[in-house]
Amino acid sequence: MTHRQFTLPQKVLFKHCDPAGVVFYPRYFEMINDCVEAFFDHAGFPFEKILESGGVPTVQIETAFPAPSRHGDHLKLTLELTQLGTASLGIAITADAGAERRFSATLTLVHIDASGRPKPWTDPMRDALTPYIRS
Amino acid sequence: MTHRQFTLPQKVLFKHCDPAGVVFYPRYFEMINDCVEAFFDHAGFPFEKILESGGVPTVQIETAFPAPSRHGDHLKLTLELTQLGTASLGIAITADAGAERRFSATLTLVHIDASGRPKPWTDPMRDALTPYIRS
Amino acid sequence: MTHRQFTLPQKVLFKHCDPAGVVFYPRYFEMINDCVEAFFDHAGFPFEKILESGGVPTVQIETAFPAPSRHGDHLKLTLELTQLGTASLGIAITADAGAERRFSATLTLVHIDASGRPKPWTDPMRDALTPYIRS
Amino acid sequence: MTHRQFTLPQKVLFKHCDPAGVVFYPRYFEMINDCVEAFFDHAGFPFEKILESGGVPTVQIETAFPAPSRHGDHLKLTLELTQLGTASLGIAITADAGAERRFSATLTLVHIDASGRPKPWTDPMRDALTPYIRS
Repeated sequence: MTHRQFTLPQKVLFKHCDPAGVVFYPRYFEMINDCVEAFFDHAGFPFEKILESGGVPTVQIETAFPAPSRHGDHLKLTLELTQLGTASLGIAITADAGAERRFSATLTLVHIDASGRPKPWTDPMRDALTPYIRS
Repeated sequence: MTHRQFTLPQKVLFKHCDPAGVVFYPRYFEMINDCVEAFFDHAGFPFEKILESGGVPTVQIETAFPAPSRHGDHLKLTLELTQLGTASLGIAITADAGAERRFSATLTLVHIDASGRPKPWTDPMRDALTPYIRS
Repeated sequence: MTHRQFTLPQKVLFKHCDPAGVVFYPRYFEMINDCVEAFFDHAGFPFEKILESGGVPTVQIETAFPAPSRHGDHLKLTLELTQLGTASLGIAITADAGAERRFSATLTLVHIDASGRPKPWTDPMRDALTPYIRS
Repeated sequence: MTHRQFTLPQKVLFKHCDPAGVVFYPRYFEMINDCVEAFFDHAGFPFEKILESGGVPTVQIETAFPAPSRHGDHLKLTLELTQLGTASLGIAITADAGAERRFSATLTLVHIDASGRPKPWTDPMRDALTPYIRS
């Protein structure tokens, strides 16, 4: 593996859990969005700047939850990129508690302008994203 | 089409929307879960009863968001079943605003007992679910 | 009582509840916001219209939760107004399950323009709101 | 000031914000709950342990939002205790962005057993909480 990965620790908090005592799965999508937001921030392009002239909406996402997560579990989210298109971005995120996989997600973002039309990634954005493309 | 569909109206509320003025996609998963919960309630098996002796966790979900939804939009969610296994259930849900598709989701639930092991659907449950299987 | 009240039924859903099996209190504030949004909609001033030229942010709220609510409980939210100022609005909301009080809240909204400054309620708004002022 | 304070940084994320571009106030209550949970964790009594034999539900909360918070703002939450009763706890939390107050909250928790009855704080809990009582 020669590409970079972005990791984010995430403790499972009270707010994430449901009456069955495990993470309510819509909360996983908040974790996923937080991870993508933290990654763009780390890469030098915080969402709050991108939003000034457009956005990066998620247009598609596939997720599997092979095992439940419980309150207090310490998850490690790992993000890498699967594909960098003209204005799109493929992202893969996994979450593990120790050696156990808790979720895996693949999603596609599109970089858009303020009117909602696809907008090509700028060269500085491409330079910042490229090292994270899965090789 | 000879099978039944379950539909649920859902206005896009302030709480669903993000700074870009459109639905924040993790909120779609709350709508999806609400729709599944309303369907089981309608079918005679409310979640609050199922939870007394197990649950119906979602183990996998795929979703596409072909067009954004805005605050005030009136969505119509439509649910049908794709597959009824021994202890699993395939569900397809779409959401439309008028003629425009806003999201489509396919998900898999598993009926479990209190210890988390798969538990076969009971005969009354199978009888209630079968009319909604996509034919 | 000669003033009007606005009521909204709200079943306690899976998404509202925490590992203790009762409503996670931040979810109550989503219910409260939904109730205020539904009231303004009912009064002829939907949030999605108000947002086009300003907003009605909540600036203060006090809430008590005298008894917990459980998954499946049927709550009845009741809204009335306590005070209609030049640009502010005092609101009282209670939620009951049968005869048992589950929460009571008093909050203050301010009607603002697009730059965030207080904006007087219009005459049609005052006419629509006045019948709900607690007498 | 001779008592201790517990502080928690919290960046305002995309998920916290509404179509008006500011924090949707129910999300503040998630931040407040996260702060209380982090404080108990720091004090040696993580929620996931407390939940095994009861809980610490919030029974009352008062909050003011003197100024809005925007996406990307860096908030500093500061927690101190106002009152330690036999089974209750008064908490005050403020959030500031630089020198500007964004919210202030006072809340009351009750320590309960598994059946929901008040349960006195243990001596180790009292020892851990006492240094944070506002003097």
